[in-house]
Amino acid sequence: MDIGMVGLGRMGGNMALRLARGGHRVVGFDRAGARGEVAELETVQSLPELVAALPVPRVVWLMVPAGAPVDLTLDQLLPLLQPGDVVVDGGNSNYHDSERRAARCSDAGVHFLDCGTSGGVWGLQEGYSLMIGGEAGAVALLRPVFETLAPAPDRGWGHVGPSGAGHFTKMVHNGIEYGMMQAYAEGFAIMQRKEAMALDLAQVAKIWQHGSVVRSWLLDLAADALEQNPTLEGIAPYVSDSGEGRWTVAEAIELDVSAPVITLSLLERLRSREKDSYADKMLAALRQGFGGHGIRPG
Amino acid sequence: MDIGMVGLGRMGGNMALRLARGGHRVVGFDRAGARGEVAELETVQSLPELVAALPVPRVVWLMVPAGAPVDLTLDQLLPLLQPGDVVVDGGNSNYHDSERRAARCSDAGVHFLDCGTSGGVWGLQEGYSLMIGGEAGAVALLRPVFETLAPAPDRGWGHVGPSGAGHFTKMVHNGIEYGMMQAYAEGFAIMQRKEAMALDLAQVAKIWQHGSVVRSWLLDLAADALEQNPTLEGIAPYVSDSGEGRWTVAEAIELDVSAPVITLSLLERLRSREKDSYADKMLAALRQGFGGHGIRPG
Amino acid sequence: MDIGMVGLGRMGGNMALRLARGGHRVVGFDRAGARGEVAELETVQSLPELVAALPVPRVVWLMVPAGAPVDLTLDQLLPLLQPGDVVVDGGNSNYHDSERRAARCSDAGVHFLDCGTSGGVWGLQEGYSLMIGGEAGAVALLRPVFETLAPAPDRGWGHVGPSGAGHFTKMVHNGIEYGMMQAYAEGFAIMQRKEAMALDLAQVAKIWQHGSVVRSWLLDLAADALEQNPTLEGIAPYVSDSGEGRWTVAEAIELDVSAPVITLSLLERLRSREKDSYADKMLAALRQGFGGHGIRPG
Amino acid sequence: MDIGMVGLGRMGGNMALRLARGGHRVVGFDRAGARGEVAELETVQSLPELVAALPVPRVVWLMVPAGAPVDLTLDQLLPLLQPGDVVVDGGNSNYHDSERRAARCSDAGVHFLDCGTSGGVWGLQEGYSLMIGGEAGAVALLRPVFETLAPAPDRGWGHVGPSGAGHFTKMVHNGIEYGMMQAYAEGFAIMQRKEAMALDLAQVAKIWQHGSVVRSWLLDLAADALEQNPTLEGIAPYVSDSGEGRWTVAEAIELDVSAPVITLSLLERLRSREKDSYADKMLAALRQGFGGHGIRPG
Repeated sequence: MDIGMVGLGRMGGNMALRLARGGHRVVGFDRAGARGEVAELETVQSLPELVAALPVPRVVWLMVPAGAPVDLTLDQLLPLLQPGDVVVDGGNSNYHDSERRAARCSDAGVHFLDCGTSGGVWGLQEGYSLMIGGEAGAVALLRPVFETLAPAPDRGWGHVGPSGAGHFTKMVHNGIEYGMMQAYAEGFAIMQRKEAMALDLAQVAKIWQHGSVVRSWLLDLAADALEQNPTLEGIAPYVSDSGEGRWTVAEAIELDVSAPVITLSLLERLRSREKDSYADKMLAALRQGFGGHGIRPG
Repeated sequence: MDIGMVGLGRMGGNMALRLARGGHRVVGFDRAGARGEVAELETVQSLPELVAALPVPRVVWLMVPAGAPVDLTLDQLLPLLQPGDVVVDGGNSNYHDSERRAARCSDAGVHFLDCGTSGGVWGLQEGYSLMIGGEAGAVALLRPVFETLAPAPDRGWGHVGPSGAGHFTKMVHNGIEYGMMQAYAEGFAIMQRKEAMALDLAQVAKIWQHGSVVRSWLLDLAADALEQNPTLEGIAPYVSDSGEGRWTVAEAIELDVSAPVITLSLLERLRSREKDSYADKMLAALRQGFGGHGIRPG
Repeated sequence: MDIGMVGLGRMGGNMALRLARGGHRVVGFDRAGARGEVAELETVQSLPELVAALPVPRVVWLMVPAGAPVDLTLDQLLPLLQPGDVVVDGGNSNYHDSERRAARCSDAGVHFLDCGTSGGVWGLQEGYSLMIGGEAGAVALLRPVFETLAPAPDRGWGHVGPSGAGHFTKMVHNGIEYGMMQAYAEGFAIMQRKEAMALDLAQVAKIWQHGSVVRSWLLDLAADALEQNPTLEGIAPYVSDSGEGRWTVAEAIELDVSAPVITLSLLERLRSREKDSYADKMLAALRQGFGGHGIRPG
Repeated sequence: MDIGMVGLGRMGGNMALRLARGGHRVVGFDRAGARGEVAELETVQSLPELVAALPVPRVVWLMVPAGAPVDLTLDQLLPLLQPGDVVVDGGNSNYHDSERRAARCSDAGVHFLDCGTSGGVWGLQEGYSLMIGGEAGAVALLRPVFETLAPAPDRGWGHVGPSGAGHFTKMVHNGIEYGMMQAYAEGFAIMQRKEAMALDLAQVAKIWQHGSVVRSWLLDLAADALEQNPTLEGIAPYVSDSGEGRWTVAEAIELDVSAPVITLSLLERLRSREKDSYADKMLAALRQGFGGHGIRPG
């Protein structure tokens, strides 16, 4: 089918390409002029052009950074659309925002779908995992799109609930991802520190890829990373977070669910970025205060 | 090749069967008379019979519960063996014990391999992931055995280091497993509690199995479990632990590695078994003490 | 000086009484008709009466539940006040709300002070610890009030910063309180479980009260609680939280500060209230899935 | 009474001095020639001299580093003693060692008391908190000593249980201490990071010292430290641990008690000493692996 793709960065560009290769007609637009590596893609220079290039009912997929950019795009896009058109937000938006935006679009007769999208840079080749929230009718209309983006037409995508449910589910997905990553990271750190055994961590990761209880796609990535760079030399121990971990933690607390592992995974990322922890200085000062324990000059 | 299997319980029975089906001659013995579901297996009634039934150099694989049973078996087995024979401990032994046992066997000229074995009840069908510690010569001798037990001859097994390294690696594997399981469990608990969205957790798990960053074998199991029993009704929130999680936590601390997620995963299991937490009673009593906050009668 | 006290519950009633006993004229009002145990207090039946009973510039201290009740009270109170009057919120309000309310009052020429108040039911006798945010002039005006409420005129109170700073500081205070309480609770739980030593926990607490590094007012409360009820029999292991712990956790994450102990203290309270943890059921189901480990019927 | 003090370092020297000032005759010995600041103390040059200088039954108090030094001292001391003599270990020994040493002494007819000692460098002036394990008769014999060392004769010391119970109780005390310190450290770190409020942390600490729920001796130390050095400049964020925290964590796990706050407090100390976390590098590498997220060169 015909689909407009707004945002042709790392994710949007690849998704546009997967769709185009899957036989869809994709019209792309990127405010910053990015086009991913999508040389073969049909692109336009403005949202009006994009809308004009699409048949009714129009399908516009947003793949722009979460937050203000989504609202700004909707500000410009909604006046160009007409009842029955469909907007999909495939980015990592906060589900509360998606609930709000769905209501806003609904006021204009436009369908809004929130589509949690997982798969990262590998999605172009392997397909994306898609969790979709919104009205069933709009989901049905876009079925061909989802079937192409997913790893296979009959799997890896689904309509999970009302507006917001797609991004809610993706948020939790990322919270789990934080916990899994931290579990692997800790395990490899323990083995790396066991110097007397001189373990080959890449070898261990590869063994685990087959038959073990901890085999996973993240382990595959770890095995690749360790094969290329067993000491992880040249990589700073500095871990960013992009919002969904904190939202998961906040949501869990809001729901009165104790989620210690997901929570600690987030805190560890914060900790990785503290160069000069005031808390630790305070601990050192207190130890000196009661025990006369020496402090290290900092 | 010819191999003696001591312990024909859930794990040992399946491993014996996989070996037999792979063309090896397996002689089995189980102190308790268990024979797994291994009707076709050749079994004997005692360790002397088992040793007598094997050609030199003998290969005896132990699949008995960790701890005292391994030492008791070695007490009886070692006098029956001769220099050049090989004993493999494929159970979940503490790696310190394996280091000690390797030294003990070495004094008798017997090779000892510690083989961390992952795969659970699915190993019979899918193969086991095997992490092996000990001397290279003994590992080479048993190559045909490892090639059959693993998912494929060239993958899923490896000689990871000196005596103890196999069980050390398996210990860390299980620590990671705890963390991954807890991450999934927390994520599904958050979604389950979000009642307004009425998410179908089995559907979400299935979507994630394809293309998502969190896809894994444990997720496959979670999807199966949720499909059969979405509310997990009839399952008590009571989680056992079998030792390797605690050993991982102790080892991390011994090595001065902070492993908060693996550690908290263990603590959550302890917590799941506390029916009447004294700590929580103390908190309630303190709140009443300073704030006059009411307590619940317990 | 003359002061109007709105809210005569457990906290407000005691504060009114401490002020009255300290020589101030206190006019009290409670929407629900509560008057603490403040038989001797002058009370009125409405906010207009309260305002009418106070000389200009009027000082009105709010001691009502955090959240909507504060805004509702301000809705009714502000039209009755005039420029130069002072409103103090001495409750456990969120500091963001206090910032907002200060701006709202400022628009009407009314000073707003946010006063974090610690001390609980013991404050009547021992005095309150007061952290005050807002304009210096208004703080100076109320100096006699703070000097009476505090344990002594020259200590236990202070102007800590601009509007919001008082409640921010109190919020962090409560976060620390959660962590300290949890530390004690865990320690006593460990000793209680060491059955072979049959430790007398009340005795241990009392020993620690003198000379030890962990002596504190909370320990004094613990010692009292344990003396009266060493087994904490009849107290449910159910721990409420009143908001400030969650705000501290959210603020720490917002500020990119890793605060694992305060965070876990909150999660432990959530956990204390989960009767039938879905996460733990999932863990049990997964263990059964890969290992054939039995589950307990739930 | 007459008492021999072995080990005249920071703790032993001060304790000897407090005893001497309290009217006891103290004979001191220190292998390294230390004598604290105890100019007025009677000292000898060897253990035999020390034993010879004491009347029967002899009382010898050990204040040497935990671990091997205690055993070495006992090796030399026990042959010099006779049935009915009493040895006290006032150091931070592991309680398992104390149980073992008590049995060893008992074989020689010598009483052994394990005395957990809290108070740090302030004990000389304020008295020590003493938790004593061992036989009631020996405790009774030493009552005058305990009454002098404690803050007051009738408080701050007690016979808490059988051999090992003194050091067990002190171990838990230190675990609680870790948790409390971490709670304060996190709270002050949150306030320090709230730059817009420019809070005066020393002022806040001082306010809390009077009337607040979090007042404590550790808070007094924090207030002192912050008054002298509000930014904690010149203090490295490097926090040592001396063993008792890890023992508490291990004991809690051994007893199946979930103690997340004490545990995380220990892990934070480990973390403070990791300069180049392999776990965090792995997280950064994984993020790059699936998301193409840039890493920082390390």
